[in-house]
Amino acid sequence: MDDLMKGEPASGFQTLLGYTLVRWEEGVAEVELTIAPQHRNRGGVLHGGALMTLLDTVMGFAETHCAVPGHSRRVVTLSLSSNFLGAVAEGTVVARGTLLGGGRKIVGCRGEVRRKEDGALLASAEGMFKYAPGSENPEGTPR
Amino acid sequence: MDDLMKGEPASGFQTLLGYTLVRWEEGVAEVELTIAPQHRNRGGVLHGGALMTLLDTVMGFAETHCAVPGHSRRVVTLSLSSNFLGAVAEGTVVARGTLLGGGRKIVGCRGEVRRKEDGALLASAEGMFKYAPGSENPEGTPR
Amino acid sequence: MDDLMKGEPASGFQTLLGYTLVRWEEGVAEVELTIAPQHRNRGGVLHGGALMTLLDTVMGFAETHCAVPGHSRRVVTLSLSSNFLGAVAEGTVVARGTLLGGGRKIVGCRGEVRRKEDGALLASAEGMFKYAPGSENPEGTPR
Amino acid sequence: MDDLMKGEPASGFQTLLGYTLVRWEEGVAEVELTIAPQHRNRGGVLHGGALMTLLDTVMGFAETHCAVPGHSRRVVTLSLSSNFLGAVAEGTVVARGTLLGGGRKIVGCRGEVRRKEDGALLASAEGMFKYAPGSENPEGTPR
Repeated sequence: MDDLMKGEPASGFQTLLGYTLVRWEEGVAEVELTIAPQHRNRGGVLHGGALMTLLDTVMGFAETHCAVPGHSRRVVTLSLSSNFLGAVAEGTVVARGTLLGGGRKIVGCRGEVRRKEDGALLASAEGMFKYAPGSENPEGTPR
Repeated sequence: MDDLMKGEPASGFQTLLGYTLVRWEEGVAEVELTIAPQHRNRGGVLHGGALMTLLDTVMGFAETHCAVPGHSRRVVTLSLSSNFLGAVAEGTVVARGTLLGGGRKIVGCRGEVRRKEDGALLASAEGMFKYAPGSENPEGTPR
Repeated sequence: MDDLMKGEPASGFQTLLGYTLVRWEEGVAEVELTIAPQHRNRGGVLHGGALMTLLDTVMGFAETHCAVPGHSRRVVTLSLSSNFLGAVAEGTVVARGTLLGGGRKIVGCRGEVRRKEDGALLASAEGMFKYAPGSENPEGTPR
Repeated sequence: MDDLMKGEPASGFQTLLGYTLVRWEEGVAEVELTIAPQHRNRGGVLHGGALMTLLDTVMGFAETHCAVPGHSRRVVTLSLSSNFLGAVAEGTVVARGTLLGGGRKIVGCRGEVRRKEDGALLASAEGMFKYAPGSENPEGTPR
């Protein structure tokens, strides 16, 4: 199986939450999370913070695909806004990030999280991101 | 010491991330998180998802203080927007939520996260929240 | 020609800005604005406030189409977030609003503004909206 | 009386809407608007687009005060999110923008609009802004 993370280790927070990168191409990415008790809020459903983590993450991946072995790209999130449209207590959710465009160094991205089972929309988001120096280019920089 | 959580167990996600409620009054709340490797992103700093989790959480607490023993209040987050103004790799951060106002059932709240050591502003946020039935009242409902 | 406004007069602010409703169906709407000097900011391009007005307006229309003659539907905007991805000084822009879903009374919508000439994306937005009583139903209420 | 606009003419959009800059200092600014029929939406209250225009404007002013005669500073709005907490049909509203901080070229700002009469909070907002080259410095650039 192809290593979607391209040899880069998962971040601490990714490991803590347990989501998996399932698609990573130029301008689009997807992560999946299977809900477990540690992801729930006081109301017993998937925590909004978990949803926003998936959204931030997947938008960041969508902007930083790099086809050059040993190279990578980095962005920082400038702003992120989320709307919460549904709640879910169990099962698997899929977050997708899609690059919208913008300038060379600052770009906008949108994201959404859906229930995998039936595609029900749980959250929708948008964000602005800034490339680290060198990461504007698809070639990225040596890791 | 007073049980700030008022006898309510921490949620699964609160336990997973390891933040602590350090202030809970009508209209204002604070949580603290001491940064550890599992909270960091691919760039080695506190993950934006962790910051947004603290912000969502602390705004939710600010809206749901309940002085009646055995009662509690619930809100759902409708929307949340965050701006990221600084990065931090270690130490303790403090998130504060403050109720802004609004209607009876739908209210707005703002939040911010600062480095505890020097008060440097890391993230600022706003959100809209809707009370669960009965939770509009400070008396809440039986747990 | 079909009266897209369904006999309802344009609001004062719509008349002031001079945008036109060019599409109005259940769940989607479009407005157009031809840029004139009174729409520009200090930098000489279309004012962000004009872009956000188009976005707020067109998302509101997308949520309130009503096929019953003499009836109408109303929403109030709870929150709206916009990302600005391009600037434009002249020509015509088209804003489109699309209903995303949500609950019965509170729904989410997304919007975007593009340059009509070439479709270049200028701004992208999302918002949460609450129906006035009776307006949740496509039949609306008597005007 | 001191010319708050520092000799710079009002933009077309400012003139169209009719708001006035009433305070302009480093990091904070205020504008006022007296509501007239042309500012109202289909529901008969101040249009959300007008509120967001005031918020975008006043945050932009808060970031671009310049004490050097003949010089000015420019920002572009990257993102802006607003929460709507109250409605108003007449009277005067005051919008205030306050610089929050951030980096050298990209900064965050928050804003709010209140009814002048009693200070009731109508809208609250946050945004991210990028300085035009040279405008990061309080001295700005020759106009």
